[in-house]
Amino acid sequence: MLIRNLDETPKSPVAMEGADRVTMAMMIGRDDGAPNFAMRQFHIEPGGHSPRHSHDYEHEVLILGGAGTFYFDGADHPIKSGDVIYVPADEEHQFIASTSHEDEGLRFICLVPVERNCGSDTPGS
Amino acid sequence: MLIRNLDETPKSPVAMEGADRVTMAMMIGRDDGAPNFAMRQFHIEPGGHSPRHSHDYEHEVLILGGAGTFYFDGADHPIKSGDVIYVPADEEHQFIASTSHEDEGLRFICLVPVERNCGSDTPGS
Repeated sequence: MLIRNLDETPKSPVAMEGADRVTMAMMIGRDDGAPNFAMRQFHIEPGGHSPRHSHDYEHEVLILGGAGTFYFDGADHPIKSGDVIYVPADEEHQFIASTSHEDEGLRFICLVPVERNCGSDTPGS
Repeated sequence: MLIRNLDETPKSPVAMEGADRVTMAMMIGRDDGAPNFAMRQFHIEPGGHSPRHSHDYEHEVLILGGAGTFYFDGADHPIKSGDVIYVPADEEHQFIASTSHEDEGLRFICLVPVERNCGSDTPGS
């Protein structure tokens, strides 16, 4: 068992190509013994964004706070605190923080399976 | 893709034996096509609790608000908003809301794998 608080877990910059002003903290992952899925916390600073990409595994996301949009299927969808988003595998998507520096940026958790593609480790799990 | 807000998704009473004043809303589940894990939202009213039980699959939990304790390994652990809890399979556990009716009760999301035990559907996924 572990208890780890969102606000007390240090986040590290995400170096992935296409990520801009994104930090991440692993909340529950393979290193904690999670056998099926991993919970990660993300913060995107105002004006930043995640990569616009697709991959062969799904996301389950909960927006915790901040302001921004979610790109999917050729359109930007406004998102707000409390929104739960299911992103199926192989669909292009992107999280984009508001550009207003009066905002806190976009905060969310994003879960992924720890394995994909018949047993390979999922990146960032 | 789906976007569904926590506050706008109706919750239903949990009829499981040992559950007291617990409601649940499926946020992302098998019926939405989730292939690996399911996200459920729970609310436990003041004085209520989840069953004290164990099962052959894990939980990944994020406390969203309210006050209460988490029973694990023979002790009640205080929990607060932002706490992330990993509950391994086969370990006895229980979520207990504060008894104070001035509190809002305990609100959290709890994720489970959609399959367990070599391919059986996980209950409540």
